[in-house]
Amino acid sequence: MSARLPNYRNVVAARRRIRSHACFTPVHSSPSLNALAGVSLVVKCENLQRSGSFKFRGALNAVLSLPPADRRLGVVTHSSGNHGAALAAVAQLLGLPATVVVPRNASAFKRTAIKRYGAKIVLCGATLAAREKTLAQVQAATGAYFVPPYDHAAVIAGQGTAALELLEQDSEVDEIWTPVGGGGLAAGTILAAGEVVQVIGAEPELARDAYDSLRMGARQPALPPQTVADGLRTALGALNFRVLQPYQLPIHLVSEAEILAAQQLAMSCLKLVIEPSSAVPLAALLKQGPQLCGTRRVGLILTGGNIAL
Amino acid sequence: MSARLPNYRNVVAARRRIRSHACFTPVHSSPSLNALAGVSLVVKCENLQRSGSFKFRGALNAVLSLPPADRRLGVVTHSSGNHGAALAAVAQLLGLPATVVVPRNASAFKRTAIKRYGAKIVLCGATLAAREKTLAQVQAATGAYFVPPYDHAAVIAGQGTAALELLEQDSEVDEIWTPVGGGGLAAGTILAAGEVVQVIGAEPELARDAYDSLRMGARQPALPPQTVADGLRTALGALNFRVLQPYQLPIHLVSEAEILAAQQLAMSCLKLVIEPSSAVPLAALLKQGPQLCGTRRVGLILTGGNIAL
Repeated sequence: MSARLPNYRNVVAARRRIRSHACFTPVHSSPSLNALAGVSLVVKCENLQRSGSFKFRGALNAVLSLPPADRRLGVVTHSSGNHGAALAAVAQLLGLPATVVVPRNASAFKRTAIKRYGAKIVLCGATLAAREKTLAQVQAATGAYFVPPYDHAAVIAGQGTAALELLEQDSEVDEIWTPVGGGGLAAGTILAAGEVVQVIGAEPELARDAYDSLRMGARQPALPPQTVADGLRTALGALNFRVLQPYQLPIHLVSEAEILAAQQLAMSCLKLVIEPSSAVPLAALLKQGPQLCGTRRVGLILTGGNIAL
Repeated sequence: MSARLPNYRNVVAARRRIRSHACFTPVHSSPSLNALAGVSLVVKCENLQRSGSFKFRGALNAVLSLPPADRRLGVVTHSSGNHGAALAAVAQLLGLPATVVVPRNASAFKRTAIKRYGAKIVLCGATLAAREKTLAQVQAATGAYFVPPYDHAAVIAGQGTAALELLEQDSEVDEIWTPVGGGGLAAGTILAAGEVVQVIGAEPELARDAYDSLRMGARQPALPPQTVADGLRTALGALNFRVLQPYQLPIHLVSEAEILAAQQLAMSCLKLVIEPSSAVPLAALLKQGPQLCGTRRVGLILTGGNIAL
């Protein structure tokens, strides 16, 4: 519990730090989708972010926050997904070596994305223990700095920059919806926007550990990694929990079928390629939106677009 | 040959006319796609335009250019694709009745899009003669104004607004590539940008009537409608030819396999849903880009995203 909690100022500082490298992603809307959802939706297109997801923001902020001496030996992380690709892209941009520890069961698609950005891949077993052990070995051998996927103050602050931009791009937003996985984006969004608009989370039924953690007042372990929303399979982080808990983040749960239907609908109406994790808040909104929101204007962070087509 | 040719000023006027209703669509790029294409690409996201394609611009400009007395009885067109949906969306926006004459063999997907915007659909046979006859009957019965899909000065000027915006959004573009079907977008782009950058066209081998028309100095009939790029099956329009011909528009031809590969690549790298017609200039660029363009910065109009997913 000793790690320092990030705050609004850290998000504003992150924005200045990353702005010359990260995309200021556009917002987009669809009258057809609005009609179906019964609300006025504005989506923040983080699928158009570098490396194909919002994760680029947090990884970039974390690396740029390091003193040069701490990063000269490179960076390392463990990830089977977007954070690995994001850190690889950041390292490539800054000319640093990067290593990503990837579980053997990760999809070939995700590995290809990581390799595309020139990172070294080290395979490990599928358990968290195996990941951590391999990561420690890489760190010992290389001296590389570990950039965690979500449980890290600078990563959280970086993810919050998406909501900061969204509020600038659309000053009439009443709520911002985000998916909840490890809680990096949800925590960052609360820090960035939680005082001016309502932040609302959404999680797959099959990965409802954040929902349960907040109800029970203590972090619950990750559920078996079964949901199609592969970005949301991880357990809520410790620091992340400490941001979500006092905010009493409302979290809506959705089924796998609802996620896939929302993904299909979003791609069809918005003409954006999005991954299932991005469709989770939209699924929740489609399910519960009209009653909840009436004529409210809803911001929604479309987190990423890294799917095999 | 009596119809007045539109010019640059008409494009600028169109921009003022449509700006409060049409999306100022974002531009987007992908370092991965740049690496593959060997050029620095910036794409204009007309797939994110209202009704899912650039056609909204031309239809809106044409309708807003009409004296109110001429449009009060509504609008009509014949189209099996994006122009029908665009005109329906424009009519819905302006509160006018719209009828779209649709060939019986048009896809259910396209019909659904037209219906979504509240237009009346009248079915006809698959030939151009059948379309024109049915259209004349609708006009006689309703007094509706005919907004042609491309062979019309205000439609051409409206389509040119996409290139005008692109030049503002990226002042370093050296070339703008567009697909060539009826020639509305190609002609509009030449009017909007042809004096400051090189405009380049691309066409499917299976629908190469514009390529042949320009080489032979006279319009050639449409080829059998076989290409997967369904937006480019129509023959080059008369007015359109009169803009493309003096400009000596270079046109590149691509195969069906090249179109589908480019579509897949664009969706994967750009995270945008695009239809095959939009992939035609990208396919041409991927095929010939490196030699042609070197380090040049290439603008590309992604024309639409209306595909069944």
